[in-house]
Amino acid sequence: MSDVLQQLGDILAERRDADPDTSYVAQLHHKGLNKILEKIGEEATEAIIAAKDAERSGDVSDVVYETADLWFHSLVALSHLGQSPQAVIDELARRFGMSGIEEKASRQK
Amino acid sequence: MSDVLQQLGDILAERRDADPDTSYVAQLHHKGLNKILEKIGEEATEAIIAAKDAERSGDVSDVVYETADLWFHSLVALSHLGQSPQAVIDELARRFGMSGIEEKASRQK
Amino acid sequence: MSDVLQQLGDILAERRDADPDTSYVAQLHHKGLNKILEKIGEEATEAIIAAKDAERSGDVSDVVYETADLWFHSLVALSHLGQSPQAVIDELARRFGMSGIEEKASRQK
Amino acid sequence: MSDVLQQLGDILAERRDADPDTSYVAQLHHKGLNKILEKIGEEATEAIIAAKDAERSGDVSDVVYETADLWFHSLVALSHLGQSPQAVIDELARRFGMSGIEEKASRQK
Repeated sequence: MSDVLQQLGDILAERRDADPDTSYVAQLHHKGLNKILEKIGEEATEAIIAAKDAERSGDVSDVVYETADLWFHSLVALSHLGQSPQAVIDELARRFGMSGIEEKASRQK
Repeated sequence: MSDVLQQLGDILAERRDADPDTSYVAQLHHKGLNKILEKIGEEATEAIIAAKDAERSGDVSDVVYETADLWFHSLVALSHLGQSPQAVIDELARRFGMSGIEEKASRQK
Repeated sequence: MSDVLQQLGDILAERRDADPDTSYVAQLHHKGLNKILEKIGEEATEAIIAAKDAERSGDVSDVVYETADLWFHSLVALSHLGQSPQAVIDELARRFGMSGIEEKASRQK
Repeated sequence: MSDVLQQLGDILAERRDADPDTSYVAQLHHKGLNKILEKIGEEATEAIIAAKDAERSGDVSDVVYETADLWFHSLVALSHLGQSPQAVIDELARRFGMSGIEEKASRQK
């Protein structure tokens, strides 16, 4: 899995300043943070709806597809703010390593 | 990054049927898909709000944190439906390999 | 305010089965519940982002605009499921009348 | 319907500066805009999930309930920014009166 996220991070960094007419990523950055964040809201909603449909149909392919879209756009947001996929992976690793991801995740906010 | 997502997938699979009193993941599965999907909506919202604050303050640590939460809960949803992190990574890889992730992502839905 | 929501409810009921080529509401119903629900997710996200911008700029006009969009699309969803705006108003009224909206809203789910 | 939204607006204005220990609305304002906006994201998600369940079960009561929650929290956000329910109603009315709500809503953003 490493290579894919690493490559994706490289591509996102590379295309950040590409021509908005030829790159979807460059177009998102050009439109600005709000447009990127709107995509996160849209893709989260689509993943939720796809999961409800999968619960009924047993076909999870759309959930996987929409989750990939959600991760992709959340990485574009992080890239817009100067962060790479590694930061998310490090945060997930940190939760394991310390007292376990479950305990961290269950803390009340 | 590989090891972290792989390990996370293993942990999620392992804890799916653990005791809900001792495992946050088991508790989520026990509450059911709706509760897991609610968490995705919550974490997406928190990531969006954190990104707006980061735009202003320059401090992106909360965005990374909330994105990790979002990815984590989306993996719990996939685990609930029988899928592993590998499925998301494969989908992202498929987009690269073929005609490039950008073209796929930009298609109108 | 009564007249506006009442009229909006009438229009939504009327256009539910109109020609999708001439009515946006009919088009939404034609595309189906998932598409309508995606719009709720989108508009909620846009309202949240607009509120964060308003916090900074002091200009709340976009928040009002996006909230109207959010209410409108949530009424299309209810119309798709056979409900009118009155149902939402009745639910809000019920919370007042009984033990007060605040206590109801604060209950843990 | 008028009276309910009008009364709700009055209550929201009144409780904005009430004691956070006795009023849920005051507590939300005290926690700040981010917490209020998180509630909008949560309630939108719950309304979407409830609508998917209603599609299957035919029971729409939860959708009405969650939509009321969504409207309520969006009004708390507007109140936090100094706006009343009237602003949303005026925006909806404006869309009718001019060239019709459908044409406005269908414009591309």
